[in-house]
Amino acid sequence: MPQGFSFTVLAQSAGGRAGRLVTPHGEAATPVFMPVGTAASVKGLTPEEVSGSGASLILANTYHLMLRPGTEVIRRAGGVGRFMSWDGPVLTDSGGYQVLSLARRRTIDDQGVRFCSHVDGEWVTLTPENAMEIQGALRSDIAMALDECPPAEASAEDHEKAMKRTTAWARRCVAARRLDTQALFGILQGGVDPSLRKRHLEELSGLDLDGFALGGLGIGETPEATAEVIRAVAPILPGDKPRYLMGLGTPRDIIRAVMSGVDMFDCVLPTRNGRNGQAFVLEGRINIRNARHAEDPEPLDPACRCPVCRRFDRRYLHHLFVCREMLGPRLLSLHNLHHYGDLMRTLRRAILDGTLEEAAKELLSRPDKEEAES
Amino acid sequence: MPQGFSFTVLAQSAGGRAGRLVTPHGEAATPVFMPVGTAASVKGLTPEEVSGSGASLILANTYHLMLRPGTEVIRRAGGVGRFMSWDGPVLTDSGGYQVLSLARRRTIDDQGVRFCSHVDGEWVTLTPENAMEIQGALRSDIAMALDECPPAEASAEDHEKAMKRTTAWARRCVAARRLDTQALFGILQGGVDPSLRKRHLEELSGLDLDGFALGGLGIGETPEATAEVIRAVAPILPGDKPRYLMGLGTPRDIIRAVMSGVDMFDCVLPTRNGRNGQAFVLEGRINIRNARHAEDPEPLDPACRCPVCRRFDRRYLHHLFVCREMLGPRLLSLHNLHHYGDLMRTLRRAILDGTLEEAAKELLSRPDKEEAES
Repeated sequence: MPQGFSFTVLAQSAGGRAGRLVTPHGEAATPVFMPVGTAASVKGLTPEEVSGSGASLILANTYHLMLRPGTEVIRRAGGVGRFMSWDGPVLTDSGGYQVLSLARRRTIDDQGVRFCSHVDGEWVTLTPENAMEIQGALRSDIAMALDECPPAEASAEDHEKAMKRTTAWARRCVAARRLDTQALFGILQGGVDPSLRKRHLEELSGLDLDGFALGGLGIGETPEATAEVIRAVAPILPGDKPRYLMGLGTPRDIIRAVMSGVDMFDCVLPTRNGRNGQAFVLEGRINIRNARHAEDPEPLDPACRCPVCRRFDRRYLHHLFVCREMLGPRLLSLHNLHHYGDLMRTLRRAILDGTLEEAAKELLSRPDKEEAES
Repeated sequence: MPQGFSFTVLAQSAGGRAGRLVTPHGEAATPVFMPVGTAASVKGLTPEEVSGSGASLILANTYHLMLRPGTEVIRRAGGVGRFMSWDGPVLTDSGGYQVLSLARRRTIDDQGVRFCSHVDGEWVTLTPENAMEIQGALRSDIAMALDECPPAEASAEDHEKAMKRTTAWARRCVAARRLDTQALFGILQGGVDPSLRKRHLEELSGLDLDGFALGGLGIGETPEATAEVIRAVAPILPGDKPRYLMGLGTPRDIIRAVMSGVDMFDCVLPTRNGRNGQAFVLEGRINIRNARHAEDPEPLDPACRCPVCRRFDRRYLHHLFVCREMLGPRLLSLHNLHHYGDLMRTLRRAILDGTLEEAAKELLSRPDKEEAES
């Protein structure tokens, strides 16, 4: 790992690892959940609120930032952390995934990805080399190698092609590293076939990478297939390096993946669903817009100690959403981040105590109902 | 004044008054600016943030609350303060003004106003009696009498009719008082003709009212006419009771009105304009969307000590507005409320020090440019 970085596994329990990830901008106790700060903002929340939820590390999206405000603006601001006034460490993705999901049109070849910006329709190229250049300008603590993520329904042959290209790109990313204060993680592809994933791991293992991520999951495959491939592959990722499950998941996804030895997570669920009125609580997920909350004087989650649950009740939050008051999305996002922060703290504590099995059983025995909007 | 209330003028300077308004839910140092919490939310901000800006008293709109969440929901919640978790005093308007500006259709006669709700199209009636009933259910500390506010272009005859009706309604509001813990203010109409205003004051003076408001201003008349009528009428409002200028103004409006002896203000400008990207700063008003801020590493206002100016720069705030990130409207609203809070503190301090003349001169000599969106 580069200077100023270290990763130490402190304890293991029931397949889970509790560790410490040190970066130049601060430490993260793992397993860690990274809130998503897409365009250099965890939507609606201040950096203080984000860190108050227990988050020590956030993710920012290279694709969004290279388009707005633009790479050079952030370079001149001293990096994305300085730009958004976030004091802790930042992980940036490579931009590749968003190109596939957001760009209006795109072409991909061995050189890289060319895409038509969803902002202004300009054509932009992303190669392993400039993905590193841009992430260098963003001065994230952890950069991700550019990868190709085939759709869930891709054939084994397509997956193999994507793996091969992803390996070649990871090699070029390693060669193109710009900062000696930035770690670089590689991304495993291979869909939901554990044997493909293992082959890809072998290909990537030879490269000088500081961590390994499972990419290409949660993009339309069945939840069982996702769980299966994580269970099969996460435990065999190099044990002395951080293991990162990209873009997933629900609290249950996280609990199960932690038991497979995953150290790092990011997901838009707590903030995106919060904006839409869905709160993660002890009883599962509630939709605060529902009429049954209209006169409920209880907090979102009576067991939660977050600033939202300590001060506001469901009746008021329901009203905010009914009236489209922007305080509503803000408060539900904040509560949800605390819910995730509490979950990560519980899991870590249990690993350190050697009781992950019991803790996970208890957590997974809780109701998992998802209240639809009625 | 009802039990638990008092109003004391502590000092006077250059026409301005510094006082203390005591209510059952806390005190307000006057002159005071009340942020507008239309639908039981000062848009985008928590009660802690609002009070942190220096605001001790907020306004909530009866019209909005009677429609959503509905009078009975707030009654059962224990009043609007409890409902929204605001610990301090609340002033509610009567709903009359919003009926005129927001309802789809409406009819007005001596009995009251009938209107078609902008929310669900239902017909609703607002009379002096139920305006007091509803404000009683909202448990505001200060209720406003129902008034008729004619348009700025109304004839003298129409103004006189509206004055007569407003007086009759104020008398009925006094008779319909529900709470012995709620003050009731009357509203002066009469357009921009000081002699009409004075006549209306004489009519209202005989009623048992706890404060007097200037209504019907800032609705399309010229700024000169507004200033003139305030200058002529505010000083002759009863000196032992709070004087409230409804719905105005800019910082300059407030400075001038304070020098005419006005004690209380409310206005949507700091929050509404903040949501739209306009920030009140030393140099006037800037539009943070403008390209000239795109790489400006300075805070909105280098002289400001608010949480926004201490932590974020123009470059980042510009980016948030360009990307329509909801953190932007939130932060500009918060800064603007601090700007208003600071202004009120400066004016009050100057009155207590006997230096309002000099302070006002200095404040009014500052640039007043308003940056358009470019």
